[in-house]
Amino acid sequence: MATTALVGTIMIDCNDIDAMVKFWCEALGLEQKVRYPKYVWLSRLSEGGPALAFQQVPEPRMGKNRIHLDLVAEDPAAFAERVLELGGSRVEDHEVEGFHWSVLADPEGNVFCVTEAGQ
Amino acid sequence: MATTALVGTIMIDCNDIDAMVKFWCEALGLEQKVRYPKYVWLSRLSEGGPALAFQQVPEPRMGKNRIHLDLVAEDPAAFAERVLELGGSRVEDHEVEGFHWSVLADPEGNVFCVTEAGQ
Repeated sequence: MATTALVGTIMIDCNDIDAMVKFWCEALGLEQKVRYPKYVWLSRLSEGGPALAFQQVPEPRMGKNRIHLDLVAEDPAAFAERVLELGGSRVEDHEVEGFHWSVLADPEGNVFCVTEAGQ
Repeated sequence: MATTALVGTIMIDCNDIDAMVKFWCEALGLEQKVRYPKYVWLSRLSEGGPALAFQQVPEPRMGKNRIHLDLVAEDPAAFAERVLELGGSRVEDHEVEGFHWSVLADPEGNVFCVTEAGQ
């Protein structure tokens, strides 16, 4: 059998780890599970799947993220409003051949997309 | 109930989508599931969890990725060798208080870490 690996964690660099953990816990309905001074792991996204985690770094975010998350919501418009309430921002909306998605950003400017479940 | 969303996809920008899909399918033991000219989705990382996907972009990767993946392998040394065979590279090794991890990179220089399962 070939040597392979599993994805255990999606790690996000951040400058204000408490603010970022609060935002992402609320946005995804997750809980903080493990905490070290400069690292926080949230509960797993699904059983056996990866966890979202955060590490405090000194450098600011630069340019467009090379890796981003695409989210799925039952009501993307309501979710976008919730993101704004939580300190995130709306970047732009797209539609291509009947497929809609919105680009949002977390409090540190990491962009992510949201589409409607089952679209 | 609060308005939340699920993580459906971890999307990685790339310049050579075929090379990147080949590398990541082999490294993680996944299969290509959906293909459009500039987008590829792999099989889900776990049931109900996110999928890894790739989008072809014109711009090169710049600086350190703000989001990276942490992998878990039964045999990290063998996995690191496999990454090199597949066209990836080894960046550095770390040990902090008995916890070991290696930093590797995919063919486009996206860094990721690998640790031993159950460490």
